[in-house]
Amino acid sequence: MATNKRVYFFGDGQAEGKGDQKELLGGKGAGLAEMTQLGIPVPAGFTIVTEVCNEYYESGNTLPDGLRREMSEAMARVEAIFGLRFGDEANPLLVSVRSGARVSMPGMMDTVLNLGLNDRSVEGLAEATGNRCFAFDSYRRFIQMYGDVVLGVESEHFQKSLEEVKHAAGAAQDCDLDAAALESLIPRFKAIVEEHTGKPFPQDPQVQLLTAVSAVFSSWNNQRAKRYRKIHGIPGHWGTAVNVQAMVFGNRGEDCATGVGFTRNPSTGEHAFFGEYMVNAQGEDVVAGIRTPEPVNKIEGPGSLEERFPECYQQLLEIAARLEKNYRDMQDIEFTIQHGKVWMLQTRTGKRTGRAAVRIAVEQCEEGLIEEREAVLRIDPNSLDQLLHPTLDPKAAKTVLAKGLPASPGAASGKIVFHADDAERISKEGTKVLLVRVETSPEDIHGMYAAEGILTARGGMTSHAAVVARGMGTPCVAGCGALRIDLDAKQLHVGGKVFDELSVLTIDGGSGEVIEGDVPRIPADLSGEFGRVMEWADRYRRLKVRTNADTPEDAARAREFGAEGIGLCRTEHMFFGEDRIEAVRRMILAADEAGRREALKDLLPMQRSDFIGIFKAMDGLPVTIRLLDPPLHEFLPQEDSQIEALAQAMGVEFKTLKIKNESLHELNPMLGHRGCRLGITYPEIYEMQARAIAEASCEAAAAGVDVQPEIMVPLINHVKELEPLRAMIVRVLSEVQAEKGVKVDTLIGTMIEFPRACLTADKIAAQADFFSFGTNDLTQTTFGLSRDDAGTFLPEYVDKGIYPIDPFVSIDVDGVGRLVKMAIELGRGVKPGMKIGICGEHGGEPASVSFCHAAALDYVSCSPFRVPVARLSAAHAQLKQG
Amino acid sequence: MATNKRVYFFGDGQAEGKGDQKELLGGKGAGLAEMTQLGIPVPAGFTIVTEVCNEYYESGNTLPDGLRREMSEAMARVEAIFGLRFGDEANPLLVSVRSGARVSMPGMMDTVLNLGLNDRSVEGLAEATGNRCFAFDSYRRFIQMYGDVVLGVESEHFQKSLEEVKHAAGAAQDCDLDAAALESLIPRFKAIVEEHTGKPFPQDPQVQLLTAVSAVFSSWNNQRAKRYRKIHGIPGHWGTAVNVQAMVFGNRGEDCATGVGFTRNPSTGEHAFFGEYMVNAQGEDVVAGIRTPEPVNKIEGPGSLEERFPECYQQLLEIAARLEKNYRDMQDIEFTIQHGKVWMLQTRTGKRTGRAAVRIAVEQCEEGLIEEREAVLRIDPNSLDQLLHPTLDPKAAKTVLAKGLPASPGAASGKIVFHADDAERISKEGTKVLLVRVETSPEDIHGMYAAEGILTARGGMTSHAAVVARGMGTPCVAGCGALRIDLDAKQLHVGGKVFDELSVLTIDGGSGEVIEGDVPRIPADLSGEFGRVMEWADRYRRLKVRTNADTPEDAARAREFGAEGIGLCRTEHMFFGEDRIEAVRRMILAADEAGRREALKDLLPMQRSDFIGIFKAMDGLPVTIRLLDPPLHEFLPQEDSQIEALAQAMGVEFKTLKIKNESLHELNPMLGHRGCRLGITYPEIYEMQARAIAEASCEAAAAGVDVQPEIMVPLINHVKELEPLRAMIVRVLSEVQAEKGVKVDTLIGTMIEFPRACLTADKIAAQADFFSFGTNDLTQTTFGLSRDDAGTFLPEYVDKGIYPIDPFVSIDVDGVGRLVKMAIELGRGVKPGMKIGICGEHGGEPASVSFCHAAALDYVSCSPFRVPVARLSAAHAQLKQG
Repeated sequence: MATNKRVYFFGDGQAEGKGDQKELLGGKGAGLAEMTQLGIPVPAGFTIVTEVCNEYYESGNTLPDGLRREMSEAMARVEAIFGLRFGDEANPLLVSVRSGARVSMPGMMDTVLNLGLNDRSVEGLAEATGNRCFAFDSYRRFIQMYGDVVLGVESEHFQKSLEEVKHAAGAAQDCDLDAAALESLIPRFKAIVEEHTGKPFPQDPQVQLLTAVSAVFSSWNNQRAKRYRKIHGIPGHWGTAVNVQAMVFGNRGEDCATGVGFTRNPSTGEHAFFGEYMVNAQGEDVVAGIRTPEPVNKIEGPGSLEERFPECYQQLLEIAARLEKNYRDMQDIEFTIQHGKVWMLQTRTGKRTGRAAVRIAVEQCEEGLIEEREAVLRIDPNSLDQLLHPTLDPKAAKTVLAKGLPASPGAASGKIVFHADDAERISKEGTKVLLVRVETSPEDIHGMYAAEGILTARGGMTSHAAVVARGMGTPCVAGCGALRIDLDAKQLHVGGKVFDELSVLTIDGGSGEVIEGDVPRIPADLSGEFGRVMEWADRYRRLKVRTNADTPEDAARAREFGAEGIGLCRTEHMFFGEDRIEAVRRMILAADEAGRREALKDLLPMQRSDFIGIFKAMDGLPVTIRLLDPPLHEFLPQEDSQIEALAQAMGVEFKTLKIKNESLHELNPMLGHRGCRLGITYPEIYEMQARAIAEASCEAAAAGVDVQPEIMVPLINHVKELEPLRAMIVRVLSEVQAEKGVKVDTLIGTMIEFPRACLTADKIAAQADFFSFGTNDLTQTTFGLSRDDAGTFLPEYVDKGIYPIDPFVSIDVDGVGRLVKMAIELGRGVKPGMKIGICGEHGGEPASVSFCHAAALDYVSCSPFRVPVARLSAAHAQLKQG
Repeated sequence: MATNKRVYFFGDGQAEGKGDQKELLGGKGAGLAEMTQLGIPVPAGFTIVTEVCNEYYESGNTLPDGLRREMSEAMARVEAIFGLRFGDEANPLLVSVRSGARVSMPGMMDTVLNLGLNDRSVEGLAEATGNRCFAFDSYRRFIQMYGDVVLGVESEHFQKSLEEVKHAAGAAQDCDLDAAALESLIPRFKAIVEEHTGKPFPQDPQVQLLTAVSAVFSSWNNQRAKRYRKIHGIPGHWGTAVNVQAMVFGNRGEDCATGVGFTRNPSTGEHAFFGEYMVNAQGEDVVAGIRTPEPVNKIEGPGSLEERFPECYQQLLEIAARLEKNYRDMQDIEFTIQHGKVWMLQTRTGKRTGRAAVRIAVEQCEEGLIEEREAVLRIDPNSLDQLLHPTLDPKAAKTVLAKGLPASPGAASGKIVFHADDAERISKEGTKVLLVRVETSPEDIHGMYAAEGILTARGGMTSHAAVVARGMGTPCVAGCGALRIDLDAKQLHVGGKVFDELSVLTIDGGSGEVIEGDVPRIPADLSGEFGRVMEWADRYRRLKVRTNADTPEDAARAREFGAEGIGLCRTEHMFFGEDRIEAVRRMILAADEAGRREALKDLLPMQRSDFIGIFKAMDGLPVTIRLLDPPLHEFLPQEDSQIEALAQAMGVEFKTLKIKNESLHELNPMLGHRGCRLGITYPEIYEMQARAIAEASCEAAAAGVDVQPEIMVPLINHVKELEPLRAMIVRVLSEVQAEKGVKVDTLIGTMIEFPRACLTADKIAAQADFFSFGTNDLTQTTFGLSRDDAGTFLPEYVDKGIYPIDPFVSIDVDGVGRLVKMAIELGRGVKPGMKIGICGEHGGEPASVSFCHAAALDYVSCSPFRVPVARLSAAHAQLKQG
């Protein structure tokens, strides 16, 4: 079951393990072995391998036979190196016992430092080091950590006792205590242990060691670790390793220190050693924030390690360079300086911001450290969001009022308003506003355009507000259930406070936070490195990336971000313009087809000019235009006053209009009379749109634009729906092209967004030039889950691990993905090489893009600001495929 | 392409074709050939085979070479038999030219009678028959029919001219005209033809014949025929045959007659010759209703054929017996008596009511005419509905106001009321009421129970009203868009009339008609024959039939109808009882889990007693109980006044309750927070239900009842939803069984009602003892189609043939069916032999039952009144499988 060898020694330039044995040694253990072999000074020690963790659990929480012997052998080598003996009462070798899993699980598991001390050896240590204060401080720390980790005595009991002693001694900080005070703590701490465990504190160093090792293995299965693994998808059987290592001390005097650092700046990516340290302190003090640490690099401020320990600083620079050369990536390190000598305690690949990731990857590539492919792979596509949008200044203070869904990235501040009309009016006066709504509807579009940011109380990651905001690149926090909006009083109740209209709030669409007041922000910054990385990514990807855009402005912006066409142009957004909504409403409320045709005549020239604008912006690239999709009632006024006004404008009675309005109400509009169902029952609507597209493409082509229109019929379920609509479109195209004397090749395809379309895609393919998956609706119907209503339970589902991730965020491979694959297979089975893409919200999400790549789609289409993310994700998918 | 032989002669006991050659000869031609061979007197003639119809179309609407020669040869044999010559001017042989497709398409195609007459031969006919009146009547009929059918001159032109002549002659009826008047019509009719076609009426009988044959072929593709074929799924390539047959005349004097009949009574099934006839008339006169025909059988009334033509009647009885013996089924015949001699013109299997079908099948089986299996197959399962519910008296006059969907069969009359409360109150006073609503909700249940019938303006075949009404066996017309309900005025506007509350209306839930006043009805009548047939059906079926029932009463009734268990017991219906809705609302509106548990405590004993009642009614049979399914807002009051009352009862503020109420509102409740999603977020609800089931089953078992509970978790999508719920149920079951000291085997399974559940059924099966398909929701999600909202376009879809049939009525085999099969395969792949059923509305529809049989389901479950239909359908499926 286990390998024979359970314990791997490292120290003095020799290590039994290797850096690539993370599975066996854990991340920390592998790093220590690797550094040791590189000749970097690492305190000697040994790693008990991860497999022992499983043995430990399988045998009912006992350490396996023979482990003790292997540990003793390794310990003897450590003792030899240091010339000290573990358990020696005169001058004891002390050790740390640390967990170390295959991947970092920060703060999840436990550590014991200074192990090996007891009532007698503490005196020996005091004598040997000539530092009684240090010795007793080490002992009291040990009792506290061991008590907590191994014996389960809550830390606060010790802390309380410590505070009492400090109070009595008039000491402000722990380090202000003198040796006597520290010594006085020992019996108190031991009493606490005995009180809570019923047993005295163990004096035998061997017992201390074995129980500490057991405790670290046990901590693998504590609640917070299990929860962390569940969230991060880490299997329980991986287990943790345990590292036992000779202590070196950063707290043995003023020529001692401890610190953490990064081989490059993790915020900016700048190539400079970056970090912080503390003189005369132990590692845990830095974390605990007992004192404020000083910077490592003198550029960062006074009191730097560079100035105070110049030789050590040079040593660290050399070590950093050696580590980067070895690991070929930026490292996150921990070090201790003991009497002027640098010891390395940990190295691992450092986390970084998106900005830093891009700069580091490009510069490391230029330095010859990594290849272009690797540089591309180094950047987490999701992290690009930070580069494309303003972000909150991480240094700024903030009062978070509530948290909603991070629906559209970027941070924004503004005066709150509760109506789209107000947003438009007030922003025209030059005031920045945040639009706050229970939920948004297509009627709010003008207000959403005018606002700096959007905040809603209801709706999920793919609610109207979220989708539109992402499309516009406007920050949005959606589904913030803690908001209570009182429209009558024009007040927002949140976080126990009341905000009147025009109060200033800030939202962070990247985290979902709603914050009081105006929080400073860092603007977006598209550096040259960003362009380089995108260029490289494009070299390696197969999947095309298009954008979802409804206006020439959005189209142009998306093109700047690298979009290779429009995958989804929603014509309904054009219906809401001030100049057209009235004609749209006349059309909907007309008594008969003749009346509808009359109103449609007024809409035709407007639609035509919309399309011309978009064709021009996308000169030379394909433009997929979706025919009208939403149910008609979305275009109608909701409030009586608006209905009254419309009735007057149309010259009909209020009651007639009200009844007609109500008759269009639907119980489940998502599953209602929309998409091609409108095209079937009111063919004149689609006919007008087909004509507008045909006329626009002829006109643009005549003006020298390279037009590549693709007409997309939404919501097809059955080939017999597509058949008559396709025939109508073909007829209109040829009529218009004959009239204009211009020939424009136009594809006619369909969205695949309901399970039935997937299941019968072979039949539908006979009538379609292309497919485009609408994975939002496909997810809604496959799961029977309304994205607008899921807010009441979906977060709990994700929280409880029922769904690994919100299926509207990342495509559900087992269910939705299976239908997608089925449809591709059926469609291409009939039409080999058929063009197939995806235009749902998933098109800009890395894991979904990876799925799309693997499923052999031709393109993904996403909102303009997600285009770089999709480009990079597509490159990752290709490169990872190998 | 075609067989060599295109023309099949029949006459004088000899026929070239056979009765089983319907594909080649059409139904009529095959019947004529068969009768001829049986020695039954049939006027001689010949059939031009269906394949010629295709040749005709393929060659651009021309008759194929050689056909004319074959026709001439056959015509010569006809001439020889009659001793007359076609086209002879002295004494012409006249012929009829009739269509005859493989299956009957009543009234869809055309017929020409008396063909062969012209200006000269009409005189010859007058002389030869000594009946000038008859001769000219025949000629004018011929010009009119030929003009209409062959030349496309609308019949009304001739009709108008005929009316003028009748007016001038003072004749009330056609037959009152004398020879001179009839003769005067000829030039007028000929002028009409010339006026409309620009050509004179053709005088050449050969030309008349060939053009008439062509016209009949052409009529195969006229609009109404194509439409009929589309609706009935008849392929266009079948084509029609053409029958050319010597004329015999029922209008040549008082010893002549024409009639139609059935070998058994098609309404009651009584074994007696049944029909009507007309003296001195041609077949078309019976159809045209120019005079009222007399009965054939003297029991039916005076002036019968039995009394007036006793010998002919005897002949007809003998023929009827011979035909039944030959065809082994009841026949629908046409005959003509010419000068006292009976001629048969048609025989085909007769249509019949459900009542008649059952009686005929049983009696024919008893008579030894057919076997038991065939008797079972003879009965259309859908026709059983008529037996189980009262139907409108077909003889009663009725004023149809509007037509809605035939949502629940049976006819009902009553005073209309607009509120469920009124329905309950007024019916308690002994008055029969019809409940009229825009749409019903679970809140209306008590009123629906009280009403004789239910009428709604909105909602489809599986709307709440429809489903509940079918479950209760209450007639219902749903989605009648023509209704306008004015709740303020308590008035119903329909069919241009206004009905106050308590006006009497009648609805026919079998046809969807809404009728003014009280129309007499025929009560349901479960005859002994019905029982026999059901017994036989049970012998042949494999599929079990369960019922959907929520009360002991429904369960008992379903058991009488042969239900073999409950496949779906909806617990939510129990939540609406007067005594519990308040506790339910307290539970929903409670601020926390403790509050919910408090309210649930009050519900527990009521649920328990519900279940005990059902277990007793289903002693020895399985009972599948579904845990709470609908979204919670369905239980809340909708109107402010109700909310106010509840707020007072609960001692909370109106506004608080109103806001909470609104916060539960959902945009797409069908896809919202319901089913197991409630079980996940509010585990205490399902826990109470599990406990109630467990306690009830223990208590019933202790009382000697054979309890077979099956707990069904609704809306599962992901195995991880089922996992914790199953664990909870298992825990509660064992707790309760330990408390009570009784062991009851209880299955725990899930509904499969979303595509994702089908796609991952292998994983879900690991946690489920059984699956039950909820094909309503599965259809809604697979199609993205809300059954409540589909009314605005689904009828048009079916009408246009986009969907062959409403997918909520009959299961969509290509889409939904494919998912069902996939789920069965995946589920049984993991758990061989797993029990799988269906409990959606499709469970009682014959085609769907047939699908379920083929898909190897274990059972279907349907509303009590559909149980016999399902039993018979299941037998059909098995028997047809062979």
